[in-house]
Amino acid sequence: MSGQRDIVLFWGSGSPPCWRVMITLEEKNLEYTSRLGSFDKKDHKTEEVLALNPRGQFPTFKYGDIVLNESLGIVDFLVAQHKSTGCCLLPDDPTKQAAVLQRKYEIANLIRATETSVYYLFRTKKDEIDPEKVKMSDLLNELEKWNGFLGKTEHVALPEFSVADIIFYPQVAFLERVGFKFEDKFSNIANYMKKMKERPSIQKSWPPHWKETPNLSLVTPYVK
Amino acid sequence: MSGQRDIVLFWGSGSPPCWRVMITLEEKNLEYTSRLGSFDKKDHKTEEVLALNPRGQFPTFKYGDIVLNESLGIVDFLVAQHKSTGCCLLPDDPTKQAAVLQRKYEIANLIRATETSVYYLFRTKKDEIDPEKVKMSDLLNELEKWNGFLGKTEHVALPEFSVADIIFYPQVAFLERVGFKFEDKFSNIANYMKKMKERPSIQKSWPPHWKETPNLSLVTPYVK
Repeated sequence: MSGQRDIVLFWGSGSPPCWRVMITLEEKNLEYTSRLGSFDKKDHKTEEVLALNPRGQFPTFKYGDIVLNESLGIVDFLVAQHKSTGCCLLPDDPTKQAAVLQRKYEIANLIRATETSVYYLFRTKKDEIDPEKVKMSDLLNELEKWNGFLGKTEHVALPEFSVADIIFYPQVAFLERVGFKFEDKFSNIANYMKKMKERPSIQKSWPPHWKETPNLSLVTPYVK
Repeated sequence: MSGQRDIVLFWGSGSPPCWRVMITLEEKNLEYTSRLGSFDKKDHKTEEVLALNPRGQFPTFKYGDIVLNESLGIVDFLVAQHKSTGCCLLPDDPTKQAAVLQRKYEIANLIRATETSVYYLFRTKKDEIDPEKVKMSDLLNELEKWNGFLGKTEHVALPEFSVADIIFYPQVAFLERVGFKFEDKFSNIANYMKKMKERPSIQKSWPPHWKETPNLSLVTPYVK
């Protein structure tokens, strides 16, 4: 692509922050060198990665000589630098732009609730889990809110796909991966997730190890 | 100002998220109606606020008919909608823009470390504080990193003031408010804080109740 600098992405399979970047690259039709690493093998702590990303995290991202490693920053950067390519993602119209920014940042509440429930379960050995520490009700309250939003618009902020979906979708896909079922209580989310799974940018960036292994049932004992 | 819609900000004194918005409004020379509320009196839970902001939080923000309540979203929105007024805040140049976005989002690490140390102390009654839960070393490690960044550039991301400073400054000013002293171990931060305090946007938006009462010494027992 003319004018595009060489893009290199170091990433881990199934990580929502990495996935945000990949969906953005696909939506903007940008070619990139994919450097898939393994969290289990600590590929995010190699010398090569640490030289670019002193915090030793995925995503680690190069855009020509530019290094930028915060996933939300990479998304903003690609949206701004490739404004006229591919999907718009952040409209100029003030009302639409405000709606996208509201949801884009409001997702922090959902991510925080995931931290104290699902991420806690994900990171703790089964026999060391303290059920008192699993705050599933916070997460269910958040999902209720987002289910309501999706009852009003087809995508998470607007009728059209936007940068808010790029942050929201991988987060909720991760919840499905660990065993959440949305059909009964959160049918708007369930319908949205089904539709989004058909989107080319999401199909192309689907976590490879999710294709080869069944979903987990990590949350099953905590969600009736 | 021609073309500007009526701006109304509901805010609480000393809240870093509210302060971000106020600094941005000042940097962009935007006039606004200030609705100062009291957290103690639960002014963020009034019917008027809840009608605009169902999460019942400050800042609550109106821009004409547009409602946008996430502080980071308000900052992005004002920067984008008033690109050519006042201070630039987010450069177009890819290298500079990437540097600003990296620091802007990297601050989440500092905020997270504040959550598990200073905010914990701030919110917990003195005789209910569990010293085991105060993770001051996380915060000190983060401050070390940011002190290093400020040894390389005059502002937090670039030689010039940017949106990264708008997120960083109120957060660290809050740490000063609760008793942190940066002079000895974090001299770059100390120098930066002194210089920034002279900046008109910061003087104009300085938390009113901080002017009338001395700094707290909340962290003193936890920082040697």
